[in-house]
Amino acid sequence: MILILKTTASQPEVDAIMARIEEAGCQVHPIVGQDRTVIGVIGDGTSIDRFQIGRMPGVEKVVPITKPYKSASREFKPEDTQFDVGGVMIGGKDLVVMAGPCSVEGRSHMVEIAHACKEAGATILRGGAFKPRTSPYAFQGLGEEGLRYLAEAREATGMPIVTEVMEPDLVPLVADYADILQIGARNMQNYPLLNAAGKSMKPVLLKRGMTATMNEWLLAAEYILQHKNHQVMMCERGIRTFVTETRNTFDINAIPILKQLCHLPVIADPSHGTGKSEYVAAVSKASVAAGADGLILEVHQEPDQAWSDGRQSLKPEAFGKLVSEMRAIAQAVGRDIPEPERQAEIRDIVMSGS
Amino acid sequence: MILILKTTASQPEVDAIMARIEEAGCQVHPIVGQDRTVIGVIGDGTSIDRFQIGRMPGVEKVVPITKPYKSASREFKPEDTQFDVGGVMIGGKDLVVMAGPCSVEGRSHMVEIAHACKEAGATILRGGAFKPRTSPYAFQGLGEEGLRYLAEAREATGMPIVTEVMEPDLVPLVADYADILQIGARNMQNYPLLNAAGKSMKPVLLKRGMTATMNEWLLAAEYILQHKNHQVMMCERGIRTFVTETRNTFDINAIPILKQLCHLPVIADPSHGTGKSEYVAAVSKASVAAGADGLILEVHQEPDQAWSDGRQSLKPEAFGKLVSEMRAIAQAVGRDIPEPERQAEIRDIVMSGS
Amino acid sequence: MILILKTTASQPEVDAIMARIEEAGCQVHPIVGQDRTVIGVIGDGTSIDRFQIGRMPGVEKVVPITKPYKSASREFKPEDTQFDVGGVMIGGKDLVVMAGPCSVEGRSHMVEIAHACKEAGATILRGGAFKPRTSPYAFQGLGEEGLRYLAEAREATGMPIVTEVMEPDLVPLVADYADILQIGARNMQNYPLLNAAGKSMKPVLLKRGMTATMNEWLLAAEYILQHKNHQVMMCERGIRTFVTETRNTFDINAIPILKQLCHLPVIADPSHGTGKSEYVAAVSKASVAAGADGLILEVHQEPDQAWSDGRQSLKPEAFGKLVSEMRAIAQAVGRDIPEPERQAEIRDIVMSGS
Amino acid sequence: MILILKTTASQPEVDAIMARIEEAGCQVHPIVGQDRTVIGVIGDGTSIDRFQIGRMPGVEKVVPITKPYKSASREFKPEDTQFDVGGVMIGGKDLVVMAGPCSVEGRSHMVEIAHACKEAGATILRGGAFKPRTSPYAFQGLGEEGLRYLAEAREATGMPIVTEVMEPDLVPLVADYADILQIGARNMQNYPLLNAAGKSMKPVLLKRGMTATMNEWLLAAEYILQHKNHQVMMCERGIRTFVTETRNTFDINAIPILKQLCHLPVIADPSHGTGKSEYVAAVSKASVAAGADGLILEVHQEPDQAWSDGRQSLKPEAFGKLVSEMRAIAQAVGRDIPEPERQAEIRDIVMSGS
Repeated sequence: MILILKTTASQPEVDAIMARIEEAGCQVHPIVGQDRTVIGVIGDGTSIDRFQIGRMPGVEKVVPITKPYKSASREFKPEDTQFDVGGVMIGGKDLVVMAGPCSVEGRSHMVEIAHACKEAGATILRGGAFKPRTSPYAFQGLGEEGLRYLAEAREATGMPIVTEVMEPDLVPLVADYADILQIGARNMQNYPLLNAAGKSMKPVLLKRGMTATMNEWLLAAEYILQHKNHQVMMCERGIRTFVTETRNTFDINAIPILKQLCHLPVIADPSHGTGKSEYVAAVSKASVAAGADGLILEVHQEPDQAWSDGRQSLKPEAFGKLVSEMRAIAQAVGRDIPEPERQAEIRDIVMSGS
Repeated sequence: MILILKTTASQPEVDAIMARIEEAGCQVHPIVGQDRTVIGVIGDGTSIDRFQIGRMPGVEKVVPITKPYKSASREFKPEDTQFDVGGVMIGGKDLVVMAGPCSVEGRSHMVEIAHACKEAGATILRGGAFKPRTSPYAFQGLGEEGLRYLAEAREATGMPIVTEVMEPDLVPLVADYADILQIGARNMQNYPLLNAAGKSMKPVLLKRGMTATMNEWLLAAEYILQHKNHQVMMCERGIRTFVTETRNTFDINAIPILKQLCHLPVIADPSHGTGKSEYVAAVSKASVAAGADGLILEVHQEPDQAWSDGRQSLKPEAFGKLVSEMRAIAQAVGRDIPEPERQAEIRDIVMSGS
Repeated sequence: MILILKTTASQPEVDAIMARIEEAGCQVHPIVGQDRTVIGVIGDGTSIDRFQIGRMPGVEKVVPITKPYKSASREFKPEDTQFDVGGVMIGGKDLVVMAGPCSVEGRSHMVEIAHACKEAGATILRGGAFKPRTSPYAFQGLGEEGLRYLAEAREATGMPIVTEVMEPDLVPLVADYADILQIGARNMQNYPLLNAAGKSMKPVLLKRGMTATMNEWLLAAEYILQHKNHQVMMCERGIRTFVTETRNTFDINAIPILKQLCHLPVIADPSHGTGKSEYVAAVSKASVAAGADGLILEVHQEPDQAWSDGRQSLKPEAFGKLVSEMRAIAQAVGRDIPEPERQAEIRDIVMSGS
Repeated sequence: MILILKTTASQPEVDAIMARIEEAGCQVHPIVGQDRTVIGVIGDGTSIDRFQIGRMPGVEKVVPITKPYKSASREFKPEDTQFDVGGVMIGGKDLVVMAGPCSVEGRSHMVEIAHACKEAGATILRGGAFKPRTSPYAFQGLGEEGLRYLAEAREATGMPIVTEVMEPDLVPLVADYADILQIGARNMQNYPLLNAAGKSMKPVLLKRGMTATMNEWLLAAEYILQHKNHQVMMCERGIRTFVTETRNTFDINAIPILKQLCHLPVIADPSHGTGKSEYVAAVSKASVAAGADGLILEVHQEPDQAWSDGRQSLKPEAFGKLVSEMRAIAQAVGRDIPEPERQAEIRDIVMSGS
């Protein structure tokens, strides 16, 4: 931590600041410049609250040096985190493609769209049973009934499932059905929920909050990781900006930043990142080129009949075409999205090996 | 609802769109222009999902007309909502001043600061027992112990208390101690929590999410109001923008907008809205001038020793001076912040009348 | 300047960095911590480019200490800047109220609205002759003809005039007619224009760019100040955020920040800061309470007939009522907006004294 | 244009609104709903100012239907615009790669870096002679001397040059040397400059303003196009958001949006879009995958010695590697970046054909 003092700081103020640092068991390194003094603090920074010390008379600004997230950082663990979910390896050379409808709408609908997604190249099935909706008057999801339909679709296709959980109490129920717990953007800083997801020891897909900085997002992951649950995926789904042409602004920069700062797999969500189906393909391909470890995409047989988010859903044929295009780009950057026919084979290898 | 069709929409597309609207029991009013057709829809709009219909071939854009929030709107209830909380009338001619430390730090500390706030002019006491913290490694609040200290401070001073609740399960516990439940910015779209707060029938202080539009915020209020709990206050606490000089950008425009759109009392939180104590007075006075119905302010005897948010806390003397300055402005705009000595008297009147 | 080195910085890298600093004639103060080294640099920082040195191998981050703007800062000049413009003192105890139509629309129209503004309490007349318009197909202003009408309105009412200039070449022409040159938000970083305005030695009203930080804005002022033209006003007119209910988000925080960082007068523009006439009064009063030194407001007899920006213009009666309300608030914060009848008197005093 | 009236609109208000529309020579189509009336307006919308009519009593909101930009839109010209600049075809199947230093720093430096860029695969040379700098105390560019060095580098390598022009007066000078005029982000709404660039009939690279919507950006292009200068490239260079890890947030969504809305070539600038060299490769590859027609990249032999923007510049070797990677992706999406050895050949074909 570095303290930049005011040009007007008095000697008693400087002395008080240095005394406070030393009381906390840290060492003080003052640098006396022409106009002002700067104090370097060496030692266990966690013993000094930077906001507290920033309030002491004479302090202009506090510059933190150590990254506040620990377990998530590359410095803590240099190599990429990889883990398998029901036979699908995440964070490895092969990209993972998660697909399915925004909401679970019924048993046969779910099984049918699951088969269509699998044939088109998906390896993980998505679908919402509990839906966070801006309006209390909008469809709120089928609840446990939806979870059962997801489980049936998994049985029918062999694909693991990812679905959202919205409150700590429901984590055990959702974890009973799902292979991956999704924490939505609105809940990225719902700390009781993060703790519950951490304790469940289930893989977690952690969506970025609409306005989350990298620091905040990685600290949210840290809430999960502190429970020794290391199976966390960071999902970029767009941020809120002044732009109105798209529902969100997909932050493509976040992909290389995350790959640099942390060791967790990075998943792109171009459906929410654009909010309009006609832009999903371009941004999906961009995400693969930028180094994402996977994608999550909304697919629906009849988007204009979807119970939610039809505006950003792809039809199965468009999704299949996109998977082929993404495969070509994945190969161009030294990675792959295996053909559907090879997926079962890979699954057996992963399952036997893990 | 109005549908703007594409210039390229074909007749069969137009027919399909009109058929869909009529199936939903609505009337169709097409306007055929030079380049394109626009369709007016009359009837109960809730039977048509605007995102679904927006996906139909030939539709370029859907323009909703009815406001999505109902109970919160001025159209639903033109007169201002007023209610009393432990003898303090909220939403009336007199402004309410809520003050106290960010975190409850101990019994004697809490009682002492409560007295100081009361003497300086506060009528409601704030203090955090459960703290949402960005980092899992930061102080998370004293929990129920903190609630007990708040209750003791209420007993000692007669001031009702407002404190944050972070998860649905804890609503009954917090409601046992608190007079007002605070929903924090990070939880503005935590729908299970909003529902639980609504069902508690306790007054709720609903903070604006960091990146919430008016629509989203009013719909969040709607989650509470739908349980017939009408004691909701809207609290502007700053939004996230590109500006880095302040922790948040206090959206002063939100005050007149809310007063126009809804009938709920509007509370300003300049402590979070600026994040720096040196700017709190200016923005507090601005909020009074703009028409806020009250303020919530962080006050601490020794801000540089505070366990959280000291950077934005005022000392009791500065707070007292600010209350006087705000009183002068309140009077200049035809309202008031009664002198501390008059508060007890007012409380008796309110209590006997209510 | 402080350099925070990477945890992986090698000794040769550290040596090279220190050598570079010493070559530039600065002193090096290394602080060796547990994980990494931090280097304090003492001396004339301008001789080292912080972006260049930030690129040297081993450097993680550069923290500048000295503020990049010089002449604008409070450290350079602690007392408030005051100056008079045609008998109106700006930056003193009395607030200045600038008012008039968005665009000059004709001779009689201009003279008439000028009289109405003066009677309602304005002391400076605004009006656009050269208009920056988003669309090339929109009305672009009357040009020099508009300047002549402004000059006639000044002659008729005695009020100095402020009007926008959009290109360096036109500075001499506009300066011939105007008492204050306005630099618009879109041109805040139009450096040739800033230089030309600086050289003109005319008072300048510098609007904040839609997305300008304080640093960028104060550095834009610095372009003018470097020509020894010290008559610069900083005009907050709202920033662009995700909010769509208003045209811009008026940044009320900017008022106390500017008063702290710089010595220049601060003017509020609630017309652009909200974009809707129904919110202008609330934000104008808030600006006075927050410490603004003046306001600039759009006034038009028939806003729904205005050639531009009618949506945010007040009618003269509403403007007159607002001036009275602002006067009460100004007095509540120890300042004033003199009654129209006292303005002539004040003007004589200022003119004879200056 | 559609007018949504207030629920409280009176019949005389409705009549006045309809009369105004008919006076303007347009047809009125009222739709009377349960709560309110909506009025469709048919005819030449340009004869009615939407802001003016929006101010009429009884009007709640005006919804424009026709896109405000004309010449730039796909509806006006469905096929992609292509043009050649000194033998380099822009907007065709082959992507264009523009590269070079941020600032021109000297004759030999410029010629040397030009050769390095060409060998690595660039076909157009960039370099700044007139530099818009946030601080008046920063290096402002070599001016005309820099233009001469650029011209020498063109002679030495055969590569056309792109360089920024900052003021209308200098357009003729810069156009004398440059093959493409660059309008920088800060000047996107400098209308006199846009007009001057339009009149020059030179190809223009129009950077997006830091906070520009698509509408504003396309209307800025319209200022150029209205002079029958159709050689305009839209350059996405990142927008300003709350994110602080990168200098700007590269808006990848903008690429498919622009390709849908307009027919002009789209160029990506990942150097400014990220501001950090370590993220440039990922975002460059993403841009190619998303459908950009070309890139502009900062390349410098010794980024840590660069006179400006070294933080985001690539070394020639890194740039060469990136071009190869982008080529693979371009081919994966059905396009190409020809090998350096094939460029001369292509140039001859283009030159003879055009």
